[in-house]
Formats: sequence, C-alpha cells, structure tokens
Amino acid sequence: MQKANIFTNIPQTLNEELFTNIISKDGIKIERIISDGHTTNEGQWYDQESDEWVIVLQGEAVLSFEDEGEVRLKTGNYLNIPAHKKHRVSYTSPDEKTIWLAVYY
Amino acid sequence: MQKANIFTNIPQTLNEELFTNIISKDGIKIERIISDGHTTNEGQWYDQESDEWVIVLQGEAVLSFEDEGEVRLKTGNYLNIPAHKKHRVSYTSPDEKTIWLAVYY
Repeated sequence: MQKANIFTNIPQTLNEELFTNIISKDGIKIERIISDGHTTNEGQWYDQESDEWVIVLQGEAVLSFEDEGEVRLKTGNYLNIPAHKKHRVSYTSPDEKTIWLAVYY
Repeated sequence: MQKANIFTNIPQTLNEELFTNIISKDGIKIERIISDGHTTNEGQWYDQESDEWVIVLQGEAVLSFEDEGEVRLKTGNYLNIPAHKKHRVSYTSPDEKTIWLAVYY
C-alpha cells in the first residue's frame, strides 16, 4: 500500500496556485491545492458543476460568496460549497503556504 | 456558509472510537474518526463495499493489511484502500487522540 503525505512535496516558490490530483473516479475528485498568497482575480467567480467540500490544513484563507459575504478559514476549518454557489478566494496567507484539501462530488 | 473545525468538539474521554458524519450524498461519505489508543479487535478485518481514501490529521496509527503487512501513518499521511481490501487498525497513539478523515466513494 502506497502512502504519501499531504504536507510534503511542496515547491518553495509558487508563481501560481498548485493543484494536485489525489483521487479521480466515478464522479468524485480529491485534490490538494497549495496557495501562496494567491487569490482569485477580482470580479472572477468559481461557478462549479459539482458540490465541493473543502478543508484548510495549513495556513489561512478567506472565501467570499457572491450572495453572503466572507468566511475566514483557519487550520482545520471546513465548509461545504454547493454546486453553482458562486465564490472566490479573496485572501490566502502571504506568510506561509495555505494547504487545502478539496473533495468534489 | 456554515464552517466547522475538524480539530474541535472532541470529547476528553472516549470509551470507543468516535465516528462523525460530515457529508453523505450520492454514494460518497466523508467522515471524521477519532481514535484514542483504540484498535480493531484481533482477528477482525474491515471488508468494505466502497473504496476508502483516508488521511491522518493528528496522532499516529498503523493499518495492517491481510495480504501485505503494515503501514504506519503519521500526521499528513494518506492512503487509498480499494473496496474489499481487508484491513484493520493495529495501533493508534495512546498519548494523543488520532484524528482521521475518511472519504468513502
């Protein structure tokens, strides 16, 4: 059985967010996302076909929702984002990498 | 949007492992499991209908597989367990609670 670690294999420098596929099968996807101060471009929204469950495992981030403001996520915080709920990443920590785990289902 | 934290709401004393459903929909389930030195009973194996992706977010554990020995999981280690791959938990840390996040799909 092959194990890996969510906190390793992180490049020192990231020009853009890093998306790593962990599992992809039968309509579900598990993905690691590393942000390094990155945010979604101003005025741009994620509008996804799938529900997304997301947890911050390191760092800090703010998600903004088109219809109900901001949610600040610290280590361990998780949130369920229903499909087509428009959102953007309005902040990630500039001081350390933010590690997200996302499950799309 | 309702956030929660995977590291909070953990009882001080656990007579048995604590399973908390986080998401359950359309054939996938996301679950938090807290172990406090617990192991699977000797000679008993999990033989699951679903694939399971599991990560240890705190603590330490050993999974034993019927056909290929043991895998030690520390904080951040994850593993994919195919359906019907027989396994048991042969160790969890007695010194701190072990927090697992499991995705059954």
